[in-house]
Amino acid sequence: MEYRRIKDQDKIGDPVKEDIESLRGKALLDVPAPYDKTKWKMKSIVTLALTFLTSSQAILIVWSKRAGRYEYSVTTANFLVETLKCALSLVALARIWRTEGVTEDNRLSTTVDEVSVYPIPAALYLVKNLLQYYIFAYVDAPGYQILKNLNIISTGVLYRIILKKKLSEIQWAAFILLCAGCTTAQLNPSSDHVLQTPFLGWMMAIIMALLSGFAGVYTEAIIKKRPSRNINVQNFWLYVFGMIFNVVAMLIQDFDAIVNKGFFHGYSPITVLMIINHALSGIAVSMVMKYADNIVKVYSTSVAMLLTAVVSVFLFNFHLSLAFFLGSTVVSVSVYLHSIGKLQR
Amino acid sequence: MEYRRIKDQDKIGDPVKEDIESLRGKALLDVPAPYDKTKWKMKSIVTLALTFLTSSQAILIVWSKRAGRYEYSVTTANFLVETLKCALSLVALARIWRTEGVTEDNRLSTTVDEVSVYPIPAALYLVKNLLQYYIFAYVDAPGYQILKNLNIISTGVLYRIILKKKLSEIQWAAFILLCAGCTTAQLNPSSDHVLQTPFLGWMMAIIMALLSGFAGVYTEAIIKKRPSRNINVQNFWLYVFGMIFNVVAMLIQDFDAIVNKGFFHGYSPITVLMIINHALSGIAVSMVMKYADNIVKVYSTSVAMLLTAVVSVFLFNFHLSLAFFLGSTVVSVSVYLHSIGKLQR
Repeated sequence: MEYRRIKDQDKIGDPVKEDIESLRGKALLDVPAPYDKTKWKMKSIVTLALTFLTSSQAILIVWSKRAGRYEYSVTTANFLVETLKCALSLVALARIWRTEGVTEDNRLSTTVDEVSVYPIPAALYLVKNLLQYYIFAYVDAPGYQILKNLNIISTGVLYRIILKKKLSEIQWAAFILLCAGCTTAQLNPSSDHVLQTPFLGWMMAIIMALLSGFAGVYTEAIIKKRPSRNINVQNFWLYVFGMIFNVVAMLIQDFDAIVNKGFFHGYSPITVLMIINHALSGIAVSMVMKYADNIVKVYSTSVAMLLTAVVSVFLFNFHLSLAFFLGSTVVSVSVYLHSIGKLQR
Repeated sequence: MEYRRIKDQDKIGDPVKEDIESLRGKALLDVPAPYDKTKWKMKSIVTLALTFLTSSQAILIVWSKRAGRYEYSVTTANFLVETLKCALSLVALARIWRTEGVTEDNRLSTTVDEVSVYPIPAALYLVKNLLQYYIFAYVDAPGYQILKNLNIISTGVLYRIILKKKLSEIQWAAFILLCAGCTTAQLNPSSDHVLQTPFLGWMMAIIMALLSGFAGVYTEAIIKKRPSRNINVQNFWLYVFGMIFNVVAMLIQDFDAIVNKGFFHGYSPITVLMIINHALSGIAVSMVMKYADNIVKVYSTSVAMLLTAVVSVFLFNFHLSLAFFLGSTVVSVSVYLHSIGKLQR
């Protein structure tokens, strides 16, 4: 649903010009006003959609754990998520072809030059997901949640290096605060264990943060490299390689389980909801990459994390800790500083 | 020692003019360069002295508790602190009279108009110290340490209202971060209890924060109202009333103990060191009020709190928590933003 609404907006304006310009690191203020407004609207819609989907995703995960159903194999679910994203992109494309006809920008066929970079993000995520199984030899699950906040810093650094976009000094300060605030909000009495993580564990956490940050930033680079290309075509090719690499992961990790118990073993209605949610979130991430950037993505998912906790108070009788309030305050100030920092560029 | 060094700097330049100007809320940049440099030097010295004295103060408190000696009456110690500050101010004045002679600005005699406001800070501190005994009916000691961070916010708000000095938006954001960061750094597994503080406890904590903030800001107003007046004369009168009000506190709280056990019961060499340290810190606070402001004071004592924890790792084998690292990061970013915010005014 979110996806359709986003897609329909696509026809209103052509954000191509600004995309090229922002890729070249030019100031937004140079862009004529009408472009600016459409871009702003698009950016807001996809950002809100991502925030909403990410927080409902976390709530579904808690819900499915409470229901005691978590026995399906994660790799089959991931494969289905990629397949659903692929299908949704094709449905969206079919609608566009019907109204606009097939053009240079929305045709599905591609060149080796264009398609050759698309497997890279999927391959990086595969390596990251495989590493994830080994890091638990060094840290426990809550510790890993804490270490995952390193993603925020790695994304910022790689965004600067690879996309060559500058953040102002205040925005860098805001980014450090975002990382510290998210971590603070997640603190619990056993969090200090993470300080005893052995050197190898730290190294793996840093490598995983770099892989995940690089995959995100590289996806943005791919999508923005051809701004006039229809996002649904770009998504289709990204997700095709996502499917392929998830088949590899399935064979490596769950081949025996699938052969013995069947592909859909342990699936429940909640699992289906989670797959649909993951697929829509994935599409929202691509949209954010097209119409906004990785920085917006990081803020959006961080705010979603806080929203999830607040919603969980009502849904699951969660108690919010003092650390959560302090972390949320720091994240809020960070969001404020990020927007202030932009104006002063 | 610190005190002497600070005092000797007094002769180098005359920071009178800027004090009047900053009192009127004018920008620092209007001040001619030589004044600016002297003021900057003076400000740095008194700020460093306050930071050093505050952190060594906290270390002495931990040390004296470890040594198991905390049986002396706090009000007698406070009275001795005020007396020592008074004596040190007189010694400093005597030196000045010897070199410069007695002038309009450094004479000890005063008018009713000048002296009438001096009892107010001492009276406010007395009320606050008396309230402190009642708040423990509602919160435990670690909880009170957490709530004391409200001082940071109350000082900022009263500084704005009473002294009519503006902070930039970024500096306000930095101030909220300072409060959140200091609280985060002090988090421990039992900190969440503070969220169960009853309404009356919160009210008392807020009133105490306002009293303490008001006393600080009012002291700055008194000292800066007559910028050409020698700081040692101003201190002398502040401390005379401090002595008087501490006699009142002594009679209210510890009269029986003093009559039965004697004035110096429970004193140890560490107690004497603590009294000397408190006296020097008090003088450093006055100096910061004269040559800097309450905002600098708050930053200085907050950074001192973090320094204390780091030093305690070496002295007392303290373990630093993850919360401490996160809080310190937020405080560091706050200090950075405060300085950045100033430049952009």
